[in-house]
Amino acid sequence: MRLPALAFTSGDPAGVGPELVVEALRSPRVRGRCRPVAVGSRAVFERAGWNPAISPIVDIGPAGPLRRGGPCAEGGRLSFLAVRQAVRLCARGLAQGMVTAPVSKDAWRMAGAPCLDHTELLQKETGSARVAMLLAAGTLRAALVTRHVPLSAVAALLRYRDIRDAAVLTENALREDLGIRSPRLALLAFNPHAVESGLLGREEEETLGPAAARLRKEGLSLAGPLSADAAWAAHRAGRFDAVIALYHDQALIPLKLAAGYSVLNRTLGLPFVRVSPGHGTAYDIAWKGKADASGMIAAALLAARLASRRFATISA
Amino acid sequence: MRLPALAFTSGDPAGVGPELVVEALRSPRVRGRCRPVAVGSRAVFERAGWNPAISPIVDIGPAGPLRRGGPCAEGGRLSFLAVRQAVRLCARGLAQGMVTAPVSKDAWRMAGAPCLDHTELLQKETGSARVAMLLAAGTLRAALVTRHVPLSAVAALLRYRDIRDAAVLTENALREDLGIRSPRLALLAFNPHAVESGLLGREEEETLGPAAARLRKEGLSLAGPLSADAAWAAHRAGRFDAVIALYHDQALIPLKLAAGYSVLNRTLGLPFVRVSPGHGTAYDIAWKGKADASGMIAAALLAARLASRRFATISA
Repeated sequence: MRLPALAFTSGDPAGVGPELVVEALRSPRVRGRCRPVAVGSRAVFERAGWNPAISPIVDIGPAGPLRRGGPCAEGGRLSFLAVRQAVRLCARGLAQGMVTAPVSKDAWRMAGAPCLDHTELLQKETGSARVAMLLAAGTLRAALVTRHVPLSAVAALLRYRDIRDAAVLTENALREDLGIRSPRLALLAFNPHAVESGLLGREEEETLGPAAARLRKEGLSLAGPLSADAAWAAHRAGRFDAVIALYHDQALIPLKLAAGYSVLNRTLGLPFVRVSPGHGTAYDIAWKGKADASGMIAAALLAARLASRRFATISA
Repeated sequence: MRLPALAFTSGDPAGVGPELVVEALRSPRVRGRCRPVAVGSRAVFERAGWNPAISPIVDIGPAGPLRRGGPCAEGGRLSFLAVRQAVRLCARGLAQGMVTAPVSKDAWRMAGAPCLDHTELLQKETGSARVAMLLAAGTLRAALVTRHVPLSAVAALLRYRDIRDAAVLTENALREDLGIRSPRLALLAFNPHAVESGLLGREEEETLGPAAARLRKEGLSLAGPLSADAAWAAHRAGRFDAVIALYHDQALIPLKLAAGYSVLNRTLGLPFVRVSPGHGTAYDIAWKGKADASGMIAAALLAARLASRRFATISA
């Protein structure tokens, strides 16, 4: 069996990304399951301990001065270029997937990046019609209908199309990647208690209820909209295979509480695999040898497994 | 030591309240720690198995026909009257605290109740200047800045006064009831990642940051505003004694995930004790002998402990 090639992006070089990537690439478990390629500024990776014995590298060029301990334009530029380069490697078939170290949305903005986050960049560069972010920790899984937006903007973004994309892509991933024959999904409510009368908000009645009903008609096993607190408890008890969350914290609060750094983040709907650890740049502990690589290693192992399956399907 | 008198309200008689109250009042642990009084329609309590050997009762009168399996005006009327009656018992010193079974906000609205929820009724009836809802499950604790409102209305309700009340009342409760000398609190952010630049919303910069700084100046140990997912993980790791949550689900999703039905709900700032189990009316399983009384029993035991302390302080 050929091992899949995976591109590991540096993430923001002022954050914990470079050191975590180097540690993951040194891990015998990771090395045994993929052919890794580092993607980023060679100078940055060398500072983090990389050497040619560890992996090939795709160098995106020298790094200018970086602010330590926080976001800056140069960190944004380098982390953005690394992701774009990795996308191109995957798009050309030189890699079957990518593992992305954390970036800072603030730094991307400072650098004038034309995208807000990884998912948006990946969608644009690949021309994918529908993508979704799926977060997972063990058997807890949540897809997001909206991602990095102010919470006050979420209500206006609860569109049928995005709910459908999140639900359909999640169902496909559960079936194809995990072998769950009839995935059971739950759509979370937006307002507390999911009160039907509209007493605590109308989104359930006007948007979420009709969307869920339409998706059920189309054959999805999608409960809800369900009171988010009750639905998460039911998910943990095994009654659903994944929940469809409407906003970032509705997924990330319970996942990080239950699983800490072992939360993994996948982008669904791309022509290749993308996995990321669930944590951020952690500027405050970067370059001090304090960062915990277990999330990055878990992301690499999951990407390797998913890319191998895909590989096998393509070759067959 | 005299045992404190506690008023147990029936909750919505179409829900699980009456049967859970009767089960709690039969529990030897509960009976050993308080002098219970049932408050509600005697006819309803009798149907749930109550008899005069179990406890005295304060009868609020006969019950009209009830809709089974959902909210109705009669259920709202009876559950509202029970709480109001219990408040009056406490206000007159006939009881030192109350344990409230779940009510339906929809049913209260149908009955024309002048209050949205327990907390609002308790505040009005007692004339308390500041109250706050504190939810707890073991060492996980969260106070709420807003309670039962549409999520879209929350941003406009993040007022300094309400943040201060939640933080100050929580700090007092941790000190007085739990003996924590210097309670460590964390204010949760409203937007994902609590980004300082305002890229993902301005509430952190404009409201929450200044409020937290002002409260720190006044001597509170209040971190934040912190990214809500990270702050909950830190709370679970023991780095805070409680978090100040901005909206219902920001507290209830993690608490119910971590603790299920053992979440308890206290109202702080009242002249007496009030505790409630964290679950709802559960209309679907009511009157079938399926409801789990552990939350109600835990609420009763906590109320007894808190009322005994208060009792001791008053007598001393």
